[in-house]
Amino acid sequence: MKERSMDGKTLILRLEIDTKQAQFGKAATAIEAAGGDIIAIDVIHTDKNYSVRDLTVKTTAAGTAESLTKALQSVPGVRLQHLSDRTFLLHLGGKISIQPKTPIQNRDDLSRVYTPEVARVCQAIHEDPSKAYTLTIKRNTVAVVSDGSAVLGLGNIGPYSAMPVMEGKAMLFKQFADVDAFPICLDTQDTEQIITAVKQLSPAFGGINLEDISAPRCFEIEKRLREELDIPVFHDDQHGTAVVLYAGLLNALKLTNRNLSETKIVICGIGAAGTACTKMLLAGGAKHIVGVDREGILTADRTYSNPMWQWYAEHTNPERVNGGLADALQHADVFIGVSAGGILTRAHIESMAADPIVFAMANPEPEIRPELVEDIVAVFATGRSDYPNQINNVLCFPGIFRGALDSRATTINEEMKLAAAEAIASVIGEDELNRLYIIPSVFNTRIVEEVRRRVMQAARQSGVARRKTRD
Amino acid sequence: MKERSMDGKTLILRLEIDTKQAQFGKAATAIEAAGGDIIAIDVIHTDKNYSVRDLTVKTTAAGTAESLTKALQSVPGVRLQHLSDRTFLLHLGGKISIQPKTPIQNRDDLSRVYTPEVARVCQAIHEDPSKAYTLTIKRNTVAVVSDGSAVLGLGNIGPYSAMPVMEGKAMLFKQFADVDAFPICLDTQDTEQIITAVKQLSPAFGGINLEDISAPRCFEIEKRLREELDIPVFHDDQHGTAVVLYAGLLNALKLTNRNLSETKIVICGIGAAGTACTKMLLAGGAKHIVGVDREGILTADRTYSNPMWQWYAEHTNPERVNGGLADALQHADVFIGVSAGGILTRAHIESMAADPIVFAMANPEPEIRPELVEDIVAVFATGRSDYPNQINNVLCFPGIFRGALDSRATTINEEMKLAAAEAIASVIGEDELNRLYIIPSVFNTRIVEEVRRRVMQAARQSGVARRKTRD
Repeated sequence: MKERSMDGKTLILRLEIDTKQAQFGKAATAIEAAGGDIIAIDVIHTDKNYSVRDLTVKTTAAGTAESLTKALQSVPGVRLQHLSDRTFLLHLGGKISIQPKTPIQNRDDLSRVYTPEVARVCQAIHEDPSKAYTLTIKRNTVAVVSDGSAVLGLGNIGPYSAMPVMEGKAMLFKQFADVDAFPICLDTQDTEQIITAVKQLSPAFGGINLEDISAPRCFEIEKRLREELDIPVFHDDQHGTAVVLYAGLLNALKLTNRNLSETKIVICGIGAAGTACTKMLLAGGAKHIVGVDREGILTADRTYSNPMWQWYAEHTNPERVNGGLADALQHADVFIGVSAGGILTRAHIESMAADPIVFAMANPEPEIRPELVEDIVAVFATGRSDYPNQINNVLCFPGIFRGALDSRATTINEEMKLAAAEAIASVIGEDELNRLYIIPSVFNTRIVEEVRRRVMQAARQSGVARRKTRD
Repeated sequence: MKERSMDGKTLILRLEIDTKQAQFGKAATAIEAAGGDIIAIDVIHTDKNYSVRDLTVKTTAAGTAESLTKALQSVPGVRLQHLSDRTFLLHLGGKISIQPKTPIQNRDDLSRVYTPEVARVCQAIHEDPSKAYTLTIKRNTVAVVSDGSAVLGLGNIGPYSAMPVMEGKAMLFKQFADVDAFPICLDTQDTEQIITAVKQLSPAFGGINLEDISAPRCFEIEKRLREELDIPVFHDDQHGTAVVLYAGLLNALKLTNRNLSETKIVICGIGAAGTACTKMLLAGGAKHIVGVDREGILTADRTYSNPMWQWYAEHTNPERVNGGLADALQHADVFIGVSAGGILTRAHIESMAADPIVFAMANPEPEIRPELVEDIVAVFATGRSDYPNQINNVLCFPGIFRGALDSRATTINEEMKLAAAEAIASVIGEDELNRLYIIPSVFNTRIVEEVRRRVMQAARQSGVARRKTRD
């Protein structure tokens, strides 16, 4: 799941201090009183009359840019030249750049990477199109495609506003898995137009990561692109979440001595992510899944106008349980929430089987806060970074694309997703595994390597790999 | 113009030498006899029985990969392990990469460039869309868009085969002007689909460089995109060539004491580039232009089914000269060829006015070789790097986009193109200017700076700049 909560901000204040009138200490005192914690000081300029300093300030609960500005105005001899926000500074001019792999220093270099010599390379691809993988960026490049229709918790903010997220994703692809990813934010929200545009721009790319496209359009777009392109197409909001949830669940089941096929699972929130999680659990062997949404438990006793719910009712809930969320939770082993904050009570959790497992992944507010039930749950996971066991997509997408690209896979199939989940789970050793550590940190460097290895193996065994090893 | 000729190739030969049977000198002698000039040696491995060396070899007129392979087979104790071509080696895995501008080293970094903090940046753009220029890559990023329909001298080789050229162009953008350019090779050659696709993918970009799209589709595509997008759209094959030609012509006219408005100019080859050159000359004040194509001189006395020719006939040749190329050239001051190799004879040049100026830009073979007429022409320019005065698009596109992006221009208009041409011409000082040096080298570092400066000034004066200076 993606995290949406916001903590204290880091601000950078440029102060001009008239050294005859004021001392730095007075400014520092005012900042602290107004809710700012000074964490770094850089002297920019100093002479006998003035000094200019950049203060890096972390705001505490009471502090805001406004409270700090106001506090400083009341200190004589101190002038706030400029106030900037570290997050915004990091975004100035965007977060990624394009770099040549070799410099062009002279005419000889120029003649090789461009005309006339490049014509021989073009000709070689023209004669054997598979050489696009060796002689162009295709083999290491992924398009991060969005229409800006379902961005984080912000909703339909459009392609321009979605860019910072897609650039951030491109950074993560590179940082964690050395994948070159480029953000494509499409100025259309028409399903057919998106499908057409992605197909048309696909030649440069070895994979397509769909991102933040709203349901139900995301299903049709992904399905069609998977059918019509010969490169992997992966909607991260669905499958990334499902893979990481499944990884966490594997370790939670191990910790509580459960077997997936006998485990009773309730999934609350049957949208894109909930459906993808369910499909992975079914592929992994789960037999007792009950889905709950606004109309209550989804059951084959009823018919639904929402085709996703209809599919869901036909493929889950074999005992045809009826009722609401409370009914579903009776004696259930696992709760998986991809719904809304605060919908669960302690009584709900008390009605579950002994040693219940709770994945409360609604963001920014989970279905129930861990502190309300930590004494009665066996394992608790959220989508947040400020609690243990964060279910974070960053654990999956870099490694799964690394493996797919390196095996030159035509697709990312169920086998590869299961392999990725098992790889993520396996990074935590038997001796390390405990109720507060069922899922590794995104900064654990073993993850990408292990996910890549198992994904490549799965690609080979399921017959979708076009090559065995990477150069 | 783009260059398409091919000279000697650089090959890299990995030799395994059995030191009991053979000496390196014998291999070197065989290579030289077979047409190879050894320019570098790297020892890879050596022990008492074997040595392995990489030889960098430049082929001479007689040398080929085959001739070298054959020659080495006849040397006992020498085994050619591997032969690679330096140009192909430079293209392995593509020529550009995507790099994060800052590393993501810890959770604090992650929370700023991605969720949850990035949501504040998205929100800021949502509230004020012009912030896409400050908070995303838009302000420094150009799409290099092709459909692969008219690639170099290779013709319609399609989007996959066109990629190496577009990647090369992206390298040049970065190397010469610090512009981030990304190659988009579209898998469609339908005019309307190309227009739609480019519009849809435009949010990430501050400019569109169209490349290697065949006529007449390139005119409609460029015209419509210019009308329907608020960022610069520039078809380099047309306007890049026109700008650099015009720069060279300005200096050639200066050298021969001519005035553009009185100069008689013949342009041969009325396609996309020829038309764009003509439009620039008209915008610069030329009055006596005669166009020639396969049906002879284009004149308003006739009507043409080709709309480009019809337009041409109506806007040039005010004296309504009739006839063929030889008729057009009588007493002409300037010949500009963007047609086919070898169509001119020495007699044609002799029929021109005194001190004729010849721009023979057909590639790889110019309309006439300089050595056939160098004694009777005042100035001779080609599209080739192995003669003086190369008319090379690389002189224009990096700087013109640098200036357009930095002034956040809505378009690249005639004023900006004329300014770019004057800037390129001005890089050669009065004291340096001579018949063999009318146009600077692409490696002259003053070009981009000067083009940027004058283009920004022209953008401001013509009212298309959205900002005055760059941060």
